[in-house]
Amino acid sequence: MSLEEYYPVSCPFCAISVAYPPSSNSPIPLSPDPEKVFPQCHLILSTPHVLAFLDILPIAPGHILLTTRDHYRKLSDLYAASTHSQEESKRESAQESSRALGEYLPLVSAALVRATGIEDWNVVQNNGERAAQVVPHVHFHLIPRYQEGRREGKGNVDVGMLKSWRMFGRGAREDLDDEEGVEMARCLREALRVELGEEGSEGGGGEGGSKL
Amino acid sequence: MSLEEYYPVSCPFCAISVAYPPSSNSPIPLSPDPEKVFPQCHLILSTPHVLAFLDILPIAPGHILLTTRDHYRKLSDLYAASTHSQEESKRESAQESSRALGEYLPLVSAALVRATGIEDWNVVQNNGERAAQVVPHVHFHLIPRYQEGRREGKGNVDVGMLKSWRMFGRGAREDLDDEEGVEMARCLREALRVELGEEGSEGGGGEGGSKL
Repeated sequence: MSLEEYYPVSCPFCAISVAYPPSSNSPIPLSPDPEKVFPQCHLILSTPHVLAFLDILPIAPGHILLTTRDHYRKLSDLYAASTHSQEESKRESAQESSRALGEYLPLVSAALVRATGIEDWNVVQNNGERAAQVVPHVHFHLIPRYQEGRREGKGNVDVGMLKSWRMFGRGAREDLDDEEGVEMARCLREALRVELGEEGSEGGGGEGGSKL
Repeated sequence: MSLEEYYPVSCPFCAISVAYPPSSNSPIPLSPDPEKVFPQCHLILSTPHVLAFLDILPIAPGHILLTTRDHYRKLSDLYAASTHSQEESKRESAQESSRALGEYLPLVSAALVRATGIEDWNVVQNNGERAAQVVPHVHFHLIPRYQEGRREGKGNVDVGMLKSWRMFGRGAREDLDDEEGVEMARCLREALRVELGEEGSEGGGGEGGSKL
């Protein structure tokens, strides 16, 4: 299945941004409905300026995307908006989006470590086609690097090593299973709540506990 | 030459941080002396919370590192410091460092585009050995992706495509030439000043102008 089939609208991340407005109480959404968009979105973070959700073509289990709520194609466009937008509100929003990316990358990283037990991971943000950017809306990949032999992927995807930049293309990755996505996203939200010191839990799902 | 020979101190980025304190007037240092550390450091940005300089083993010309001024090994350690440090000043510093990374990635990207004429680039941040982290101090790589045939590297380094994650290792990269580093860093600082709307120039160097 190609990304074009997955993403029929002009910007899929803008569609997600519209479908999942910021929550009022917490940056961590409570049991968000994955079916507000097609294909399903497994949301784990939703703030006025950034969102995080599972990649639907994961390079490894737990592959997360952190993106801006507003549309900027490349990081340089985000900078241009923060300085050259005619409206002050757009400049401020771009500035706050930049800072929010910096603020949430460490938090989402800590939650990824907690939820999956990994110790190593890559953060990758691609700008432009030659850099393997597929969706033209600024986003950071968080990609776990599991130990050899742990969490083998289905099929021929080697989850232990991201061997080549071609992995960011459309051919080498497998669809995220919806049920696995639901469970992984629930564990990541639980881990985010623990990191933030928030009370409460969504219960349900599996055997309990945030450790997968 | 191995990285161990290049980096005899325990943390080379902390050594750079100590050697180049934040400038008081502007985040862009004025003609900084590359020889305050060994190997040379080609500094382009110096703020209370972050620094940027050229990678001494560039994957492509203009390969920049953006790092925190304080020492954190992985992004998760940066998050832990921002919430669990006993001293409030350390928590605040970690929080401000996170936001500064988000704030300066777009600016440094814009300057990289301006100085080199590239349209495409990758931002990569590696956590842990399996993720190809070499220096254990949080840093983001900004790696230009030149068009085919433009800016061929010396030797066998293909600057057009970062083919494999092995490129982040120690074998496949060539030393940055000191003179080329001086000129590239000067151009990047000029581009940063243009982006920030700052007056002035360092003059000197080459044929003038910030376009390489």
